[in-house]
Amino acid sequence: MKKIIGILGGMGPAATVDVMDKIIKNTPATCDQEHIPVIAVSFPDIPDRTASILSGGESPLNKMLVALKILESVGAECIIMPCNTAHYWYKELNESTQVPFLSIIDITCNKIVNEGINNVAILATSGTIKAGLYQERLERENINLVIPDEIQQEIVMESIFSYKGGDEERAYRLMATVINQLENIGVEKFIMGCTEIPLILSRDKDQSRYIDATEELVKKAVRWSYSD
Amino acid sequence: MKKIIGILGGMGPAATVDVMDKIIKNTPATCDQEHIPVIAVSFPDIPDRTASILSGGESPLNKMLVALKILESVGAECIIMPCNTAHYWYKELNESTQVPFLSIIDITCNKIVNEGINNVAILATSGTIKAGLYQERLERENINLVIPDEIQQEIVMESIFSYKGGDEERAYRLMATVINQLENIGVEKFIMGCTEIPLILSRDKDQSRYIDATEELVKKAVRWSYSD
Repeated sequence: MKKIIGILGGMGPAATVDVMDKIIKNTPATCDQEHIPVIAVSFPDIPDRTASILSGGESPLNKMLVALKILESVGAECIIMPCNTAHYWYKELNESTQVPFLSIIDITCNKIVNEGINNVAILATSGTIKAGLYQERLERENINLVIPDEIQQEIVMESIFSYKGGDEERAYRLMATVINQLENIGVEKFIMGCTEIPLILSRDKDQSRYIDATEELVKKAVRWSYSD
Repeated sequence: MKKIIGILGGMGPAATVDVMDKIIKNTPATCDQEHIPVIAVSFPDIPDRTASILSGGESPLNKMLVALKILESVGAECIIMPCNTAHYWYKELNESTQVPFLSIIDITCNKIVNEGINNVAILATSGTIKAGLYQERLERENINLVIPDEIQQEIVMESIFSYKGGDEERAYRLMATVINQLENIGVEKFIMGCTEIPLILSRDKDQSRYIDATEELVKKAVRWSYSD
């Protein structure tokens, strides 16, 4: 009996779709009935996470809690939240529910540490960077972690918002610029630490240099759904 | 204030993802917060619809009602169900809820009638064909509707189940064979009357000959979400 995965989504909506797509692709099913049950609450009007972290904009926590309570009430058996920046509020969310809540940050950091990945840059929102969501653990583990400089980070943000606004072409161009610059200073791997980034970079032929946090989260959730 | 669209999904799971993707693409949004709220219940273990219609296999109705009640309980303000064949039970589902339930069959037939589309073939599961879901209305309206012959219909079914089983290449090859045969006897347009078919045929460059029932359903749902 496969357990129901609950998706606290909408941040942004395309990332929620990406997660659902990746759940299907990571499930060894030969017909509909072998796939994993999923309930997704995609509420895109959750206030912007980065704006709240950087400049004290409206907190998204209350609306995230509403979505979490819905998932809980309808029987979701584990929760995943396809938004890295939203994990700034992970502790509050996790403590407010009895349902296991998988952290995209912990899972991705585990992979990096376990596989001894080094010289890795973090591509993420300015909220995720400022909050140090990835740095805390990885620096403690002595991973050589590269953070984009201020100008590069602005370009990363511009890319993410371009994608959210529907301009996929511009989003890709901007992100590719930063990746090239970082490779020139010796970066070997990139954490796609914002759930829009796998979408922005999906046209890129060389995916081996990327660590897709969304994919890691999904793999873990699928294993969890199959477990007793 | 945009209203919440509820998706009674999982039939199959990829069709549910396709609907969510099409909702995003049909929404004129420039940032996350302008997108439409969606709650999707994707329960792929709903028994096979065609097997139930053709050979009295287990009815999917009870499990569909469970999903419908979940959507109702969490505040979905309209329901869409991305599975044509499942609309065999539309009347029972619609009568069991106070929430507006949009019919993919009605919406697609309306388009065909309103636009005066003719010489149109229906590509759908054998369940949808046998139940006459599209024929009833379109024949009453004197549309010249072509139904695949028995052998072609078997190939269509084989294509759909290949896709559901993960073999996208084979699914496309099979479906393309039937489409070519039907074009040779004068068919001009094709109703993609199974929600897997837009996915199977997505690699096809000439999309102008297809009427995508999923897309029509989504457009209507998006307009509905924006309405007062």
